[in-house]
Amino acid sequence: MAITVVGSVAFDSIETPAGRRERCLGGAATYFSLSASFFTDVRVIAVVGEDFGKRQEAVFQARNIDTRGIEHTAGKSFFWEGSYLENLNEAKTHITDLNVFAAFNPKIPDAYSDSEFLFLANIDPVLQKRVREAMPQARLVAGDTMNYWIKDHRPALLEVLKGLDILLINDTETKMLAGNNNLVQAARAVMSMGPRALVVKHGEYGATLFHGDAQNGGAFRAPALPLEEVVDPTGAGDSFAGGFFGYLASQPEQNPAAFRRAMFYGSVMGSFACERFGTERLQELTRQEIDARFNLFRELTHLA
Amino acid sequence: MAITVVGSVAFDSIETPAGRRERCLGGAATYFSLSASFFTDVRVIAVVGEDFGKRQEAVFQARNIDTRGIEHTAGKSFFWEGSYLENLNEAKTHITDLNVFAAFNPKIPDAYSDSEFLFLANIDPVLQKRVREAMPQARLVAGDTMNYWIKDHRPALLEVLKGLDILLINDTETKMLAGNNNLVQAARAVMSMGPRALVVKHGEYGATLFHGDAQNGGAFRAPALPLEEVVDPTGAGDSFAGGFFGYLASQPEQNPAAFRRAMFYGSVMGSFACERFGTERLQELTRQEIDARFNLFRELTHLA
Repeated sequence: MAITVVGSVAFDSIETPAGRRERCLGGAATYFSLSASFFTDVRVIAVVGEDFGKRQEAVFQARNIDTRGIEHTAGKSFFWEGSYLENLNEAKTHITDLNVFAAFNPKIPDAYSDSEFLFLANIDPVLQKRVREAMPQARLVAGDTMNYWIKDHRPALLEVLKGLDILLINDTETKMLAGNNNLVQAARAVMSMGPRALVVKHGEYGATLFHGDAQNGGAFRAPALPLEEVVDPTGAGDSFAGGFFGYLASQPEQNPAAFRRAMFYGSVMGSFACERFGTERLQELTRQEIDARFNLFRELTHLA
Repeated sequence: MAITVVGSVAFDSIETPAGRRERCLGGAATYFSLSASFFTDVRVIAVVGEDFGKRQEAVFQARNIDTRGIEHTAGKSFFWEGSYLENLNEAKTHITDLNVFAAFNPKIPDAYSDSEFLFLANIDPVLQKRVREAMPQARLVAGDTMNYWIKDHRPALLEVLKGLDILLINDTETKMLAGNNNLVQAARAVMSMGPRALVVKHGEYGATLFHGDAQNGGAFRAPALPLEEVVDPTGAGDSFAGGFFGYLASQPEQNPAAFRRAMFYGSVMGSFACERFGTERLQELTRQEIDARFNLFRELTHLA
């Protein structure tokens, strides 16, 4: 089943201990859609400027991603510059130029209107809500957010959470959103705000799925791969989301067993994203490599 | 098979967000032996003062732990006071009174000399080495250490590592010991110092076993239980070690499958230790509860 994703398509200049890259193709919607495209059809809603040309478009086309919802306007695309020199787990932002993104008003192509799966990447919750309302046929809606929206745009964010089935955020964001430092208690509080499933990402330690009422809150833990070298963690969370939601959308039923496998596929895609700068690794990946790593993750965690 | 453990038996005054306890029975060898006693016979080597009386002795007796190697001397037992008010993952030490522990010279009862399993808890590496050399019959030797020995007693510690089969330490200690901030690279460096298996404990995120030459360094990840309430994390690492090594010692073969299950039992015992102050939870635990939680850990991590 097709997923529609709304979010940023951007250029990133990135510095890590492994080196530096100028103006890589990036943005949450880019990482998400490349990652999800290995599992299902993906349609993107975003806005770009005149610096987004054929070379960038070709990256999406190579993965058969529907870009009719990427609006081209005068000006420059969203630009981010950051580094991970001291801590690979947390980016230090040097520059955020919203550019054409500042006036982003998502337009949904008619051709997208039968998408049963909707992913609201990390953007202004006002826009997330608008897209969700414009796509009432979406029967499974997942989303992301960040500390900025949690701290300074809480009322709008709470509105979005009411309409979400699945929220994907990290430890710090979960605790901040709940105002509670215990992860299990915080997870329960966040789920009482709307989402019936919560994926908490722990960076190099993997991720935990909280999904309901089973013993211990129905938790499920997916590992992260212990990586010999993290070249660039940019987009790892969005790639996780793409693998997770892409796999779910590809399944006939979104039952608990499918959620578990989706957690593994999320973690698999996050691990690939870190192996090269920007989207380089996702661009040349194969489904065979993905499934081999899925099996490695099973080996990494299963008793026998 | 019987395990001999050498380490501290102490009194701890502990403050956590859940409350405060004065002079609980504690110490690495105490937590380790209580935890391991659910799996195999345990023999302790330690030193205590006149404040260690029948009440404390009874805690060991209730679990059939051999205490003939606990030397009683004039003076006071090792005393530690600490709190976890800001961060449940890291104790803030207020007082460390070595007392009789300052002159500890481990004496090994003849009755212990057939122990095939030896655990060197976190004490001066000079003493760890002495005990290891005095027990040449031990065919599987595991040990623990801490930042203090890594930083200020490196040559002595390196001598101990040469004689260890398994080292159990945390993330920070692994990276500090290796002088490398990448966990996989650091693990490999530490294993080149002696231990053929390394267990890296990640606190609330579980633990990773590195054991050799398989793909990705033969890593295996055990989860930690997402806990609704952490009452007191003191001794969680030693309880992990007790469950891990106790289970290994109970098995006819210490093969890779046994190591995997041992990681789960370690994590299970660490999770119980946190549920009450000091050794309270370990004292009243049953093997049935342990196996039920083992199954819960499987449920928490396995795809189907």
